[in-house]
Amino acid sequence: MRLITTLTAAALTIGLATFAAPALSSAFTKAEDAVEYRQGAFKLIRENFGYMSGMVRGEIDFDADQFKQRSKALVHLSNIPFDAFTGAGENATNNSDALPAIWQNWSDFESKRDAFQSAAVELAEAAESGNIRDIRPKFMATARTCQQCHEGYRAD
Amino acid sequence: MRLITTLTAAALTIGLATFAAPALSSAFTKAEDAVEYRQGAFKLIRENFGYMSGMVRGEIDFDADQFKQRSKALVHLSNIPFDAFTGAGENATNNSDALPAIWQNWSDFESKRDAFQSAAVELAEAAESGNIRDIRPKFMATARTCQQCHEGYRAD
Repeated sequence: MRLITTLTAAALTIGLATFAAPALSSAFTKAEDAVEYRQGAFKLIRENFGYMSGMVRGEIDFDADQFKQRSKALVHLSNIPFDAFTGAGENATNNSDALPAIWQNWSDFESKRDAFQSAAVELAEAAESGNIRDIRPKFMATARTCQQCHEGYRAD
Repeated sequence: MRLITTLTAAALTIGLATFAAPALSSAFTKAEDAVEYRQGAFKLIRENFGYMSGMVRGEIDFDADQFKQRSKALVHLSNIPFDAFTGAGENATNNSDALPAIWQNWSDFESKRDAFQSAAVELAEAAESGNIRDIRPKFMATARTCQQCHEGYRAD
């Protein structure tokens, strides 16, 4: 029993050593960490969206597999930034384009988040067809959910 | 029909305007974009992992709901960086800790990716229990999958 305890403690020390610094520095206890986190997530979203936009616009040759991969990534990423608008991220607008209106209209903001997440799922489903004609309207619908939230809630 | 076509074209223009710049600048046509993308994704992974590590270590008070949220984010994010080791990201090691060994042992790298993704899912399942005793071993198992990949494939 003592051996097991010792081994577990050793494993815990080894396993956690790698993550010691982040644990102390990025736990969303500070508003700036939350802002950095959500900006990082939106940047990854934008990169995927930009790639798909390039294909929809015909600036990048349409590649069904690439589009599928990007749309799946978007679905995953659509779940990431919003956690960081709560907790330490609540009312955090320093070095951020987030407007105070977000927290003044929280349930509306949440419904816009939900619309974006649902649209991303529908886009990924359409991407499975491999047909740009099926994909385009779903891509446009997703783009509109971005815009509809940015209009009232983003500074630029 | 013409009206519909015109409206669709207008919507396309409005909808895509927001994303024009990213489409041109971050389509993973360049190795440095792929490196930046995967580093951004790993940073978000590390932030969630660090927070959970803080709870497992007792440096942050255990909060079952927060842990659940973080573990779900980890599941989503575990799907993100690996796409950017292919395409323009293949053999991209400039300004990166990625070692050439990744591409020399690609199927092993993929199996380590899969192990990480599966461990993250099991951690999120354990987090549903809300019990730190159930969570801890799954957290440690996930940490080990990080280490097992970093050992051979990351420079530092």
